[in-house]
Amino acid sequence: MSAFELHPQLAADTVAVATWPLCEVLLLNDANFPWLVLVPARPDLRDYHDLTADDMAVAGAEITRVSEALVALFAPTKINVAALGNMVPQLHIHVIARFADDPAWPNPIWGAVPTEPYGKEALDERVAALRRAFDGG
Amino acid sequence: MSAFELHPQLAADTVAVATWPLCEVLLLNDANFPWLVLVPARPDLRDYHDLTADDMAVAGAEITRVSEALVALFAPTKINVAALGNMVPQLHIHVIARFADDPAWPNPIWGAVPTEPYGKEALDERVAALRRAFDGG
Repeated sequence: MSAFELHPQLAADTVAVATWPLCEVLLLNDANFPWLVLVPARPDLRDYHDLTADDMAVAGAEITRVSEALVALFAPTKINVAALGNMVPQLHIHVIARFADDPAWPNPIWGAVPTEPYGKEALDERVAALRRAFDGG
Repeated sequence: MSAFELHPQLAADTVAVATWPLCEVLLLNDANFPWLVLVPARPDLRDYHDLTADDMAVAGAEITRVSEALVALFAPTKINVAALGNMVPQLHIHVIARFADDPAWPNPIWGAVPTEPYGKEALDERVAALRRAFDGG
C-alpha cells in the first residue's frame, strides 16, 4: 500500500480546482468541452468498484456536486459521467457537460477532436467560475 | 411523473438478465464485448445526478455486483463504467469488460466496431453464466 499520488498524465492534462473529502477535482485543459475529472485520493485504485461502499457514496455526492455546477454554469444538453481508465490506470471519473452543438455530439468525446488548450485568461476565468459554482455562487 | 418503462431502444438492443432492487440488468446483444447495462427502474431519469442519494448508493452496489461478476467470469484488463445517454435519453449505466486485445482497445467501445449479435446458443449461455456469477456461482 503506497500513499496517494496523482498520476503524472492526469497532472499534465489538468489544472487543480478543488480538494474535496474524497476527490481531487481537476479541470481538463481542453476548451472544446467543460470537462472535469474527479480522482479519489486513495492509493492503488483502478476500477470504480475498487472504492469501498462508503467512498462510493461520497463519490456519488461529489459527482452530483460537479454535475449540478456544470448545469448551473452552462445549461448543457446532457452530463456524461464515465470511469474508463484504459490509458491512465489510476481511477478517475470524467464529468463532462455536453451540448447538441459540441464538436463530438452525440458521440463520446474521447479522441473525437484534437485537444484545444485554454488561453491563460480563459483558464483562470473558468477555474474561478467553477469554484464559485461549487460553493453555490 | 409517469411509471417506469424501459426505453424501446434499450429493449431492442439488449436481453434481460435480472431485476435487482434498483436496476434492470441487461446484456447488450453484441458479442464483441461482455457489455451490460443497468437501468434504474425509476421514471423520468436522464442524468446520473438525477438519482437520489439513497438510489445512488444502491446503484454503486449494483455496479459493483456486475463488475465483480465480469471479473470473475472473464478476468478482464479493465472495467469501464459510464452513463452517457447522448443518444438514448433514459438514464442507463454501461458496465463493460475490456481486454487489451478487444477490437476497440484502448479506446471507448461506442461506435468502434459494428455490433455483432450473439448466436442464439451463445446468447443463452452468456445469460446463464452471468446469472450464476451474480449469485456467486
